Amino acid sequence: MSRFWSPVVQTLTPYVPGEQPQMQRLVKLNTNESPYGPSPKALAAISQQTNDELRLYPDPEGATLKQAIAKLHGLNPNQVFLGNGSDEVLAHVFAGLLKQNKPVQFPDITYSFYPVYCKLFGIDYKTIPLGKDFVVNLDDYMTPNGGVIFPNPNAPTGRSISRSEIETLLTKNKDSVLVIDEAYVDYGTESCVPLLQGVNCPENLLVVHTLSKSRALAGLRVGFAVGHPALIEGLERIKNSFNSYPLGRLAQAGAIAAIEDQAHLQETSAKVIQTRTKLIEQLNGLGFDTLPSTANFIFTRHPKYAGQKLYQALRDRGIIVRHFKSPRIEEFLRITIGTDEQSGELVAALKEILA
Amino acid sequence: MSRFWSPVVQTLTPYVPGEQPQMQRLVKLNTNESPYGPSPKALAAISQQTNDELRLYPDPEGATLKQAIAKLHGLNPNQVFLGNGSDEVLAHVFAGLLKQNKPVQFPDITYSFYPVYCKLFGIDYKTIPLGKDFVVNLDDYMTPNGGVIFPNPNAPTGRSISRSEIETLLTKNKDSVLVIDEAYVDYGTESCVPLLQGVNCPENLLVVHTLSKSRALAGLRVGFAVGHPALIEGLERIKNSFNSYPLGRLAQAGAIAAIEDQAHLQETSAKVIQTRTKLIEQLNGLGFDTLPSTANFIFTRHPKYAGQKLYQALRDRGIIVRHFKSPRIEEFLRITIGTDEQSGELVAALKEILA
Repeated sequence: MSRFWSPVVQTLTPYVPGEQPQMQRLVKLNTNESPYGPSPKALAAISQQTNDELRLYPDPEGATLKQAIAKLHGLNPNQVFLGNGSDEVLAHVFAGLLKQNKPVQFPDITYSFYPVYCKLFGIDYKTIPLGKDFVVNLDDYMTPNGGVIFPNPNAPTGRSISRSEIETLLTKNKDSVLVIDEAYVDYGTESCVPLLQGVNCPENLLVVHTLSKSRALAGLRVGFAVGHPALIEGLERIKNSFNSYPLGRLAQAGAIAAIEDQAHLQETSAKVIQTRTKLIEQLNGLGFDTLPSTANFIFTRHPKYAGQKLYQALRDRGIIVRHFKSPRIEEFLRITIGTDEQSGELVAALKEILA
Repeated sequence: MSRFWSPVVQTLTPYVPGEQPQMQRLVKLNTNESPYGPSPKALAAISQQTNDELRLYPDPEGATLKQAIAKLHGLNPNQVFLGNGSDEVLAHVFAGLLKQNKPVQFPDITYSFYPVYCKLFGIDYKTIPLGKDFVVNLDDYMTPNGGVIFPNPNAPTGRSISRSEIETLLTKNKDSVLVIDEAYVDYGTESCVPLLQGVNCPENLLVVHTLSKSRALAGLRVGFAVGHPALIEGLERIKNSFNSYPLGRLAQAGAIAAIEDQAHLQETSAKVIQTRTKLIEQLNGLGFDTLPSTANFIFTRHPKYAGQKLYQALRDRGIIVRHFKSPRIEEFLRITIGTDEQSGELVAALKEILA
């Protein structure tokens, strides 16, 4: 505490990211990173830029990266907004689009950074309880609001909803922005990006992506949003009033090569999906109750063992998963899908714990 | 324009960074980058981290980098705050420390991002005119305020004031934070960092540094602030409510190695200072009137030639400098100190233009 803090600082409850432990020989299944490395082409592109040109500022607009993203998704570059990870993109989205005179709506169980942004920017919000089996039920969102945001698939549940459901919400929610946070979309969820293509691009739909999950570049810090050019322009105004150069030269070079290597993405995502299917079977065989997942993580509980206890017992064996001490989900573990080998170690440890 | 923008977006006038032209064979003296490359040890450290571990999130706290900075400056790691370039650091400083119920004070001619931050965060500000010969006169700052911020040396003038003058202001300004933006400190300005060492560290002094200038890593995006632990804690609360991971793994690795290579910094800064001395002599020989500079740029005007005209004539010859269309300084050019060779090209071009 200091009397020199701005008044808002006293009111903040900062987001707590999953820990990055320094322990060796750890099975790290707590922050939804890819178990496979990034595209080798991304590493090569970074290496090529690691030279004396680092003395120069990067392109503040990230024009080449915007072009690569636009090309991949069938959009125009002026439909693309870049940020230092999707967390920074989301921060600018809250400040620039979701701060309105009505509350923004999001699920009660979702990415726990959303209420943190609201506190920071003084945004009123309303949480909508998830429906049966932790599903996002869009019928519950059809009330006047200052914006709607949810991840699809949702985190930490891993459950997704279809694009057509989101289209239905769009037809009824015309007076505020709808933000779909597709951080985990590449593991089996229908993306809403196709809705943004062509002349019928809705004025109020924004889709947020990250390179930290399926592109395996969490260490590089790149995320982006795609949407109507006027929404993007609003975000650019906020960004250019905050930090002109959020993406360095290495981040831009690596991201361009990663975006262009769709084969690597598909290959590694397919492996994760395969491991996920097998892991869910094995866990359910051990008596776990696991939600359906289209993400690179699963959300699971055991009817006879407390979530906190399982978390600690796994940790004692060098396996780190994520546990949230929040109402309704404190019996669950969120487990990142690792390699088959890591999955094997997890299952073996759980067998030992449950024995 | 979009009806979906948050109200504040309409009011913003974003900062416009110096351009990053794509032209080949350019003499680029417009954004105060170092003409020399970064520490070779920084490049080596980045190369070593360019591997599959990029799939993992970086340390959100940047603990090792904080230790390196603390060690260099004789401080404790809890006196160090990290950001994605000093622009992001400054953004958090405005939001977290300078948003008070009295106006923040800064010079009328200074870093033009300051009023942009104020608009973004809804901060009232008061500009204090520079004194004679564009000097920051601290006697003019001794009125009640919500904070004081200025660069030392000031930009775009290049003029600095002594540490003892700042100490005097500190003894009289005890109820708000004083922020010294030392982006260009390594080219001959007395740093205020020593005031922060030991048990007498003032509660209300914050010093901001960047690795984009003397460390020649503008392309990597790393800046930091040092100050009293309670001020740093306030900034961490803001940062952790905005983006947990502003510095990627490559940025942290490169920055650590750059901070530790003090010899490279001293060698390259000495060369810049030498080139600056010579350039000022040559320009004044051509009739220019140049302000004294302790930065890696100079601020100069010619009594017979308009700033805009000189800017354009240099640009036509492939030499890019910076010109601000602002009252009182529109006759000036801000010229980054390049290599001796670039200085030679600049002087030759000016001789041609003035002939």
